[in-house]
Amino acid sequence: MEATIYDSRPLAHHLFTELRHEAQRFQQQHGRAARLAQVIVGQADAAEVYRQQLEHACYHIGMNSLTLALPFATTEAELRQYLITLMRDPTINGVLLLLPLPEHIRQQAITDVFPVEKDVDGLGPRNAGNLLLGFPNFVPSTADALLQVIRDARIPVQGKHAVIIGRSNIGGKPIALALLGQDATVTICHSRTEDLARITRSADIVVVSVGRPHFLTAEMLKPGAIVFDAGINPVEGRIVGDVDAEHVREVASFLTPVPGGLGPIIHLTLLRHTLLGPGIPE
Amino acid sequence: MEATIYDSRPLAHHLFTELRHEAQRFQQQHGRAARLAQVIVGQADAAEVYRQQLEHACYHIGMNSLTLALPFATTEAELRQYLITLMRDPTINGVLLLLPLPEHIRQQAITDVFPVEKDVDGLGPRNAGNLLLGFPNFVPSTADALLQVIRDARIPVQGKHAVIIGRSNIGGKPIALALLGQDATVTICHSRTEDLARITRSADIVVVSVGRPHFLTAEMLKPGAIVFDAGINPVEGRIVGDVDAEHVREVASFLTPVPGGLGPIIHLTLLRHTLLGPGIPE
Repeated sequence: MEATIYDSRPLAHHLFTELRHEAQRFQQQHGRAARLAQVIVGQADAAEVYRQQLEHACYHIGMNSLTLALPFATTEAELRQYLITLMRDPTINGVLLLLPLPEHIRQQAITDVFPVEKDVDGLGPRNAGNLLLGFPNFVPSTADALLQVIRDARIPVQGKHAVIIGRSNIGGKPIALALLGQDATVTICHSRTEDLARITRSADIVVVSVGRPHFLTAEMLKPGAIVFDAGINPVEGRIVGDVDAEHVREVASFLTPVPGGLGPIIHLTLLRHTLLGPGIPE
Repeated sequence: MEATIYDSRPLAHHLFTELRHEAQRFQQQHGRAARLAQVIVGQADAAEVYRQQLEHACYHIGMNSLTLALPFATTEAELRQYLITLMRDPTINGVLLLLPLPEHIRQQAITDVFPVEKDVDGLGPRNAGNLLLGFPNFVPSTADALLQVIRDARIPVQGKHAVIIGRSNIGGKPIALALLGQDATVTICHSRTEDLARITRSADIVVVSVGRPHFLTAEMLKPGAIVFDAGINPVEGRIVGDVDAEHVREVASFLTPVPGGLGPIIHLTLLRHTLLGPGIPE
């Protein structure tokens, strides 16, 4: 079996065109461009790649992007104060705090400053709670993008067994809840999971979000499985995913590649949240 | 194989003794008993059973209990206003809104009035978000009680495959996150799950919270499985669980019975939240 390799360009083009139009409308209505603020603390390769991609996309859509790059030694109190300032700035439509944070900064000490309406990646407890309780507002953009690709590619989800590898707050956990909301049976696996391959081999759908190149191999899949690669790993100047695509494509029936799969849809979704608020486009 | 039937009386006795002591201390410090407010809308058999059990436990611990029983036809706006009034009452330490609500009342329209500190069953979006993000405050009492029983019975959880049947906001979803927080691999199944028995048969641990008597049968388990019954079903004047205990006990290695298993620990946990705030007792 040779997997269908998902090409996100048509969907990305559709989203891009809509956003460009909406960005113009925003500019006309408000006399300024819609603005995203990105906050990055310390050095983080994957986060920096993501930040640049978003900046680049903002430029082409006609949005405005601002980055606050803070040193590694920034304290919780300092970061908190910077975030409050950005949140209160009426010229900023959304704030994205890039993860991971340095270990001395506890996420719970700062995310409560996120007001629901500017927390465009759904990082704060209010948006997370709404997602858990089943009435989502801003869903983290990876999970939101995944739902859009599922719809675009007409992947059947209801009743299917989806195994998610990874349990981060912006990856695995919201992805699991998003799929649960679509009536999938969901399993969350992680670094402590025993006998991971046995579990992934029982899956109809596998989503990988662990940040390790080539982590998901062909042997871990049942023939015909549907595979979503949510990895973004900078390797020798290129971006590679979490899937060993060369071999997985011979076993799976569907695969989102890296680059060119989920990535562009994730970026556009985050910018859509910033410009238009929550809600999946029709 | 004959399962160990968990007897929650020793743990319940321990919790009860601690709470009784703390309730006296509260009375001495504040010149009044700690008070739980329960709100029930319309008729709901299972909720009414639960309400009476809590009222009964309050009485024996030395806490005060108040019930607001509203008619089925109560509107969202009316319920919202009643909840705000109760939340603001300084003589009330915790407010429990009993579920399910009538269908014309949307949970999202009222739970945002719950302040974190009086939302003792973790029903509001702030507490739910904290749980999802991995820094729990008030965890819904069924999930919190389950963790205590797991610890009391020394059930190994890390890396094990736990299958949760049910995805309610006070049952399956918080239970799944609580077990994920203990490093279990978790699967959430529900009414739309295809081939449920295949999935439950792969589980080391099964938790049932569906509200259907005898739902989990012996055929759905692998030999030696650990089974938690979180069902409370009033049947002909008795309370029965979601597990077909008579046959499951011959296959499982461990089973919490109904009555006498999780139930008393859930009640005491809810009252512990009301009296002492969040946090699992040592």
